[in-house]
Amino acid sequence: MQCVRVLRGLSPLCRAQLSAWTGTRTGTRTQSQVAGTRLDLSGIYPPIATPFTAEEEVDYPRLEGNLQKYAQIPFRGLVVQGSNGEYPYLTEQERVEVVRTVRRSLPDHKLLMAGSGCESTRATVQLTEKMAAAGADVALVVTPCFYKGKMDSRALIQHFTKVADRSPVPVVLYSVPANTGLDLPLDAVVTLSQHPNIHGLKDSGGDISRIGLIVHKTKSQDFQVLAGSAGFLMAAYCVGAVGGVCALANVLGREVCELERLCVSGRWQEARVLQQRLIEPNAAVTRKLGVPALKQAMEWFGFHGGACRSPLQPLSQEETLTLRKDFSNNGWL
Amino acid sequence: MQCVRVLRGLSPLCRAQLSAWTGTRTGTRTQSQVAGTRLDLSGIYPPIATPFTAEEEVDYPRLEGNLQKYAQIPFRGLVVQGSNGEYPYLTEQERVEVVRTVRRSLPDHKLLMAGSGCESTRATVQLTEKMAAAGADVALVVTPCFYKGKMDSRALIQHFTKVADRSPVPVVLYSVPANTGLDLPLDAVVTLSQHPNIHGLKDSGGDISRIGLIVHKTKSQDFQVLAGSAGFLMAAYCVGAVGGVCALANVLGREVCELERLCVSGRWQEARVLQQRLIEPNAAVTRKLGVPALKQAMEWFGFHGGACRSPLQPLSQEETLTLRKDFSNNGWL
Amino acid sequence: MQCVRVLRGLSPLCRAQLSAWTGTRTGTRTQSQVAGTRLDLSGIYPPIATPFTAEEEVDYPRLEGNLQKYAQIPFRGLVVQGSNGEYPYLTEQERVEVVRTVRRSLPDHKLLMAGSGCESTRATVQLTEKMAAAGADVALVVTPCFYKGKMDSRALIQHFTKVADRSPVPVVLYSVPANTGLDLPLDAVVTLSQHPNIHGLKDSGGDISRIGLIVHKTKSQDFQVLAGSAGFLMAAYCVGAVGGVCALANVLGREVCELERLCVSGRWQEARVLQQRLIEPNAAVTRKLGVPALKQAMEWFGFHGGACRSPLQPLSQEETLTLRKDFSNNGWL
Amino acid sequence: MQCVRVLRGLSPLCRAQLSAWTGTRTGTRTQSQVAGTRLDLSGIYPPIATPFTAEEEVDYPRLEGNLQKYAQIPFRGLVVQGSNGEYPYLTEQERVEVVRTVRRSLPDHKLLMAGSGCESTRATVQLTEKMAAAGADVALVVTPCFYKGKMDSRALIQHFTKVADRSPVPVVLYSVPANTGLDLPLDAVVTLSQHPNIHGLKDSGGDISRIGLIVHKTKSQDFQVLAGSAGFLMAAYCVGAVGGVCALANVLGREVCELERLCVSGRWQEARVLQQRLIEPNAAVTRKLGVPALKQAMEWFGFHGGACRSPLQPLSQEETLTLRKDFSNNGWL
Repeated sequence: MQCVRVLRGLSPLCRAQLSAWTGTRTGTRTQSQVAGTRLDLSGIYPPIATPFTAEEEVDYPRLEGNLQKYAQIPFRGLVVQGSNGEYPYLTEQERVEVVRTVRRSLPDHKLLMAGSGCESTRATVQLTEKMAAAGADVALVVTPCFYKGKMDSRALIQHFTKVADRSPVPVVLYSVPANTGLDLPLDAVVTLSQHPNIHGLKDSGGDISRIGLIVHKTKSQDFQVLAGSAGFLMAAYCVGAVGGVCALANVLGREVCELERLCVSGRWQEARVLQQRLIEPNAAVTRKLGVPALKQAMEWFGFHGGACRSPLQPLSQEETLTLRKDFSNNGWL
Repeated sequence: MQCVRVLRGLSPLCRAQLSAWTGTRTGTRTQSQVAGTRLDLSGIYPPIATPFTAEEEVDYPRLEGNLQKYAQIPFRGLVVQGSNGEYPYLTEQERVEVVRTVRRSLPDHKLLMAGSGCESTRATVQLTEKMAAAGADVALVVTPCFYKGKMDSRALIQHFTKVADRSPVPVVLYSVPANTGLDLPLDAVVTLSQHPNIHGLKDSGGDISRIGLIVHKTKSQDFQVLAGSAGFLMAAYCVGAVGGVCALANVLGREVCELERLCVSGRWQEARVLQQRLIEPNAAVTRKLGVPALKQAMEWFGFHGGACRSPLQPLSQEETLTLRKDFSNNGWL
Repeated sequence: MQCVRVLRGLSPLCRAQLSAWTGTRTGTRTQSQVAGTRLDLSGIYPPIATPFTAEEEVDYPRLEGNLQKYAQIPFRGLVVQGSNGEYPYLTEQERVEVVRTVRRSLPDHKLLMAGSGCESTRATVQLTEKMAAAGADVALVVTPCFYKGKMDSRALIQHFTKVADRSPVPVVLYSVPANTGLDLPLDAVVTLSQHPNIHGLKDSGGDISRIGLIVHKTKSQDFQVLAGSAGFLMAAYCVGAVGGVCALANVLGREVCELERLCVSGRWQEARVLQQRLIEPNAAVTRKLGVPALKQAMEWFGFHGGACRSPLQPLSQEETLTLRKDFSNNGWL
Repeated sequence: MQCVRVLRGLSPLCRAQLSAWTGTRTGTRTQSQVAGTRLDLSGIYPPIATPFTAEEEVDYPRLEGNLQKYAQIPFRGLVVQGSNGEYPYLTEQERVEVVRTVRRSLPDHKLLMAGSGCESTRATVQLTEKMAAAGADVALVVTPCFYKGKMDSRALIQHFTKVADRSPVPVVLYSVPANTGLDLPLDAVVTLSQHPNIHGLKDSGGDISRIGLIVHKTKSQDFQVLAGSAGFLMAAYCVGAVGGVCALANVLGREVCELERLCVSGRWQEARVLQQRLIEPNAAVTRKLGVPALKQAMEWFGFHGGACRSPLQPLSQEETLTLRKDFSNNGWL
């Protein structure tokens, strides 16, 4: 398979090549696999936060405010309804409506990757179809996880295969063990990489040997791995990843894109200096202090973060100080 | 507080005492706390499985078939939409409809405990109200778990307090770390036990020291602990639990109730013999082989188990043999 | 097999029956298995702490002071070089010398169970022989654990079999996952229970279903399970354990023996009240604050605790307060 | 501090600068910190296996055979008594004797890093002194781990500080959570990096964000991080590590050194191809199949692996096939 960069509105040739895929946009259910190509996923995506009002309603005007600012940053696209979007706290209708809203203001040449994973296969299939209809270019499908003990390779391969078979848009697998308590097994990834409609993996586990091995074993499928965090973005590029879905890009978007540029152009020394300064703030807005910290930091950097839905709590004063220090100690505040 | 046994249709006195609570049945939102009493939760509950057709639709006739058989067994009540009900695979409408169906055929004096937990507080509040309206006597509320790292005591106390404040029916906390990756912290349980509308805890973690300590530290609140598995039911009684919600009771309901009777009447020697024979089949239908095994075993014992929804897979042949052996080795098959 | 209570100095009959075993005492290497009996292990054992001087040398006079006090308490015997004895911090010579010291002051009818586990099989065999020569009645052999990933049932069965084959005294298996990161697999326990020189298991993991199942599956071998902690002692008795090795017995020895008496005589109501009051102080001196807390609490109750060897640190002031509260809140201080 | 490469026998200047350190070699206890320099640790080290005879005795002739072969490979030095040397299975005398043996045949300009960690601080201090006297250039000190719950930063900082204060040779910290169940906390590493006699860290956990952050936060101390496995060697170089202690280097030593060369000289594309081919065989001889697999693979590549000490078991036939495939699938067999 050949990797083609989607430059909607810029490249008529690409659009022709991707007829199967762009067909989705016009409502046709022709799948990308028909074309025998992989959608080019390479680049940086912020998994955008969902701003809420004080009453915990989705705050669409503020969401749009953020989108306008993100439009100035050389992202490859946006991830909507990733873990940082608090998707488990949204109704299905809200999940779809947020995607529709993002699509309206997102330039055509930027990818919209929408989280459509649910616990059951049937719900995932249905939501994936709705997301595609709402304008998603790619479905990001998280591993089901409630019945952890039963989510072995057999079950997961069947799940993702059914979803990918039915999805009008390419599927990206999503493994995020910190939230799900489950790492998509390597052999399942390798098997699933052979599916024509499964184009990549977002790996948020961060086991860099595993990431390198997945790249190695899926090479012939032109399968694409995206780092699920800015903390190991450079290392992931180093072993063969093609991009990153990074919570920190909601806050320091230009800097994460700059890190991408340095890695892609082989300027590793400069990349290292920048990468090292990003690890601590990245950890602060992810595993250390989570979505409330991400939203707080967004406020400091000119974006609308706002409150989280309950049961997520606002940061304590002490946590806010810690967060601030993790940015200021690295020269970002 | 005083513990009163609810014997609907039998005890007018109880009904008077519980006016606040039974008010719910007639639509009034008066909360049980008003009465200053705790609903008596003591006894055994099967967390019923949800039968599906070959097309993975809820099979209501078969569900009713099971209910008729369960009516012959001296259960205290039923748990609907617990983990074994595959609730994460049902839509909200299905969750409510199953409760409504169960309510119709459940005798008045049996408790209907309905799982109403969701990830967000607002969704949990709403579903709890719907469950009560559909006939649930008690709301069983699982810990939210997706943002594990942020689900500390502060967040969980706030979540359960909000839910209990708004719930028309008494709330039972539900901690099931094997599925959620999260154990409801002991200090949170102790704090929450003081809420007039939080009547108990279903603890499926099985740390027996913790269970004993919870009983000890919530004694003055007349707080009730239910063992979340038949594997440690006797030990839980021994340290002060008052009942159990046991997957195995879907299969060996009479035997689990017999174990209860032996424990409650202090016939510990006999209880021990029976308990020991239940551990292995219990493990088989829970942590070892999960819901598909529970459903398979139900078929062997005259109930309708049927298929699971995807991504849960049917047992392999080898797993079926293992399951069979875990029952036959202990004299049940 | 028949279980015989060892009453050295009291029961000539027993001594005759146990000639094989008591042979050890006089230097003969005849193994207990020859007699076809199991040594009766039932009862309570404190896993004694090792007092150190300010220079971190073994403080033999203070050790003997403690032993004199323990002699007043109806223990079945003592465990020397269990986890609470800081055995990993002692040299082999010290380990043996401490056992020799204890033997000298321990009445003949009390069992001396000596920890003789090392990482390698050969070292364990050698130390077991030395411990027996120094006066140990039983060897308590912990699972090797450094190469966790390789310590499967095959390796562990081989290890314990070799040790038991060579040991001049009966062996008790010892599983303590909090320290070793490894739970001796149930199938390995069942297999090893058939070895004539393996008489029991000290289980410190505390999974009560597992304990019940082990009792059940080793019944025909007259295999004996000892609870490894006072936190689940009553529950363990309830499902069939015959005794306990309890850190807390170093501090509240009479109370733990009283709990035993209540359980053994079937006075479960009284037992429950006492058990519940012991859980918190027990947790404090084990998993919560560890050996330094055990030694601190010993000081409060008239024993010599003293310092730990480095790298174990003395309690902070705040930890000491917590510890004190865990005793006083339950009426022990 | 300035980093100086030790080229014993080649660089008189270096030798002068390092008088404090080389002093050790001649018996003087002057510590390296006096010189105010850091020993240059950069490069690749195989953590050598310990060959045993069929009777499980250390097989010195075969050890020397391996050493002669390793002398042909551009290693920076050797690690003796790392986890792959089965050090927990050796007596103290054996541990020292193996170091002495290696020193005799190791060229002066190669570093001998000797594992000298024990559970207690005092034993570690003593063994470190013996290792230095036996010819070790560096002491590799693993985290104590038995009392996991108590091994917090406070305890570990005190432990390593005491050891480093007394050690005649530079100390390298060693964190290997797969074996110890304990990751040396980042704040402890940062604090310890300021000790003049603590020159680096061998990190076998493989969390690449952590490794990058450690490099970042210890930069001013000229502190050196070594990757503890070939699986993430390239990524570690990428984020600032200076070398690796890689089990796989016992088997594919030239290849691992070639990977180092490609990384150091910035030839990342070639490095990536090589790195990817090393991940699977590396995993096979470490976390997947462990030391027995390492020893088996050594046999295939012309080294003496031999048996392990019990309780480590030889590979099963099936495991041997898996191991072989992990090498052959990547073109190494």
